[in-house]
Amino acid sequence: MESLARIEGGITAPKGFTAGSASAGIKGKKPDVAVVFSETQAALAGTFTTNRVQAACVKLCRERLGTGRARAIVVNSGNANAWTGPQGIQDARQMADVAADALGVDAGDVCVCSTGTIGVPMPMDKVESGIRTAAGALSPEAGADAARAIMTTDTVPKEAAVETTIAGTPVRIGGMAKGSGMIEPNMATMLAFLTTDACVEQGALQACLSGAVDRSFNRITVDGDQSTNDTVLLLANGAAGSEMLTPDHADWPVFEQAVCEVTLDLALKIVKDGEGATKFVTVTVTGAASDEDAQKAARAIANSLLVKTSWFGEDPNWGRVVDALGYAGAQVAEERVDVCYDNACAVKHGVANAEVSTKELEAVLKQDAFSVTVDLHLGQGTDTVYTCDCSYDYVKINAEYTT
Amino acid sequence: MESLARIEGGITAPKGFTAGSASAGIKGKKPDVAVVFSETQAALAGTFTTNRVQAACVKLCRERLGTGRARAIVVNSGNANAWTGPQGIQDARQMADVAADALGVDAGDVCVCSTGTIGVPMPMDKVESGIRTAAGALSPEAGADAARAIMTTDTVPKEAAVETTIAGTPVRIGGMAKGSGMIEPNMATMLAFLTTDACVEQGALQACLSGAVDRSFNRITVDGDQSTNDTVLLLANGAAGSEMLTPDHADWPVFEQAVCEVTLDLALKIVKDGEGATKFVTVTVTGAASDEDAQKAARAIANSLLVKTSWFGEDPNWGRVVDALGYAGAQVAEERVDVCYDNACAVKHGVANAEVSTKELEAVLKQDAFSVTVDLHLGQGTDTVYTCDCSYDYVKINAEYTT
Repeated sequence: MESLARIEGGITAPKGFTAGSASAGIKGKKPDVAVVFSETQAALAGTFTTNRVQAACVKLCRERLGTGRARAIVVNSGNANAWTGPQGIQDARQMADVAADALGVDAGDVCVCSTGTIGVPMPMDKVESGIRTAAGALSPEAGADAARAIMTTDTVPKEAAVETTIAGTPVRIGGMAKGSGMIEPNMATMLAFLTTDACVEQGALQACLSGAVDRSFNRITVDGDQSTNDTVLLLANGAAGSEMLTPDHADWPVFEQAVCEVTLDLALKIVKDGEGATKFVTVTVTGAASDEDAQKAARAIANSLLVKTSWFGEDPNWGRVVDALGYAGAQVAEERVDVCYDNACAVKHGVANAEVSTKELEAVLKQDAFSVTVDLHLGQGTDTVYTCDCSYDYVKINAEYTT
Repeated sequence: MESLARIEGGITAPKGFTAGSASAGIKGKKPDVAVVFSETQAALAGTFTTNRVQAACVKLCRERLGTGRARAIVVNSGNANAWTGPQGIQDARQMADVAADALGVDAGDVCVCSTGTIGVPMPMDKVESGIRTAAGALSPEAGADAARAIMTTDTVPKEAAVETTIAGTPVRIGGMAKGSGMIEPNMATMLAFLTTDACVEQGALQACLSGAVDRSFNRITVDGDQSTNDTVLLLANGAAGSEMLTPDHADWPVFEQAVCEVTLDLALKIVKDGEGATKFVTVTVTGAASDEDAQKAARAIANSLLVKTSWFGEDPNWGRVVDALGYAGAQVAEERVDVCYDNACAVKHGVANAEVSTKELEAVLKQDAFSVTVDLHLGQGTDTVYTCDCSYDYVKINAEYTT
């Protein structure tokens, strides 16, 4: 019987990883540069935004992924280095070169990520000096500082870590993430970085990360906008001394589950920190004609501005839920539909359920977290999306902040 | 040379049409029932929501359209008669029966439309007495009252009318509309009713209306939500005594243009009354690989919550515009893209345009109305969508109002 335990810490919880951060002046006086470093060569896995226009740093990261290995990740907040033309590509390369020089590694082993305002040239003087400062301050204790340095409109840093055992050897997986606006399944402005001291074959590591991202970061939505910069990277350096993991290893499912645990934990922390969010809502669609239909329906509900504002108003306005259901593009037979808020079913067989009072429904919506479950009673398709409400503050934050 | 003149009035501007309204208590003390009546048999054309779940009244209206003719339209606000099951269908039929009885016409010649809260049974006692009161108060002067009776969260009634000549005979087209939230192309919660005293062959009337709706109501968006109840109806009673119009008639284009003028006028009035809207924005995409691509891009920009909140903040945050462009699903070559606010181009060839200052861009956004134009420089595809910003008040209205 394998154990899986949540532990304190984040990106530097696994052995052989250190982090450093700096306030370079890109984002006022706040920390805005982070470096994550692996003491030895690590296998690299990554997933990226599907936005057709991708930031310069995403292009560079994709290139790095081709080698399947890395030693370091450099991240800045405050500037996305997106829509910055050929100069942006050159700046991303320069960031890798500066980090490589400061860390004494190959530039080809450095990944670069940026998040912040789109369309503004990178202030390279500040960025370069920030990278050197962060690289000079590496420590296994600086994971939390790094998590803080990658924030933009986030109100809290986001970290997660777990420990499990692979063939008797303890291994850890740690991570940090940023993101609270421009969040939509398939990678919206969110960055997440994971490390593990397990030893994992690179192809297996990539498959594991892709699967975990699909069940976590691709299942959250704040506002339906998808960013140019989304990136999730996972480094595995083998420092725990465990056996080499491949999908054939008896403990492979244990490792997969541990990675999923960290990605889901970070993903939910992003939704809970959704810009202006006051409610955390789990939208589940069951009984759909297909999983794809379930996903379409769950996303339409989770992204409907009318649904989100009704949650903010603590109003069990299921009419807006079924309205979104109708335009989702999924097969729907009105007379079969059930809609429940937690265990209180507002709709049975397509009409208002007389057995549940508005008061009961309102009590569910007054909670900080609740679920909306729609059963289409058509087939076996199911999907879940995690989301939040839309409040005055969402508008305030986005009217006043230049992304 | 044919003339096309805007005139005062709305639904009763054309000859042979009268209207009446009543306060039936469905929507507090406000007027909530309207009847539009044609003194003679009229040709009927209609377009409806594409939401897979359609209100009972929409189902009935579709049935009526099969006959291609009508004498009257009955509308109530305050209750959408949607997700009301078999009882809802029965209630919609009963509304037609009551109106037919009060007006002395066939029930098969009465169209029924509802708008308001979803999922609540129709208060039929109130509705029936409201229909009888409205039917008893018919007058050619009551068009404005009818326009007021169909409002929900609308802050102003919406009317439009034009006069033109067909083969020397003056004819008029008039209309009224409601809608300010749940507005998205392809008919969101909006109702629009048009009348004309021209004599038009029914098939031609339908083609004309479908074309006009596509260039007007299907080109507006407030929040990307699409309703269960959207309906546009056009009645042509021939009372002007003009020649019978078909697409072969020399003056057919004149009639088409006149109908478009009224639908576009009403559509723009809906956007300008968008819930909480402070800005009216025309989003145009040109140079797309296809018209379809242009439409995808224009709609992605117009529906992006991040873009809409930046307009509210009067922030020329073009990064959010190009971000939406990237996930729209249209072909984009970053290095070719130009983005302009009115005549001030923020982006040239995919990067910030150094020749235009932020101050100049901000001056454009401070206006109540402006345009955002994206040239993709890839082909001949073009499209325009009319929309508004997203303000604190949008959230307030939708958190507090039960649709």
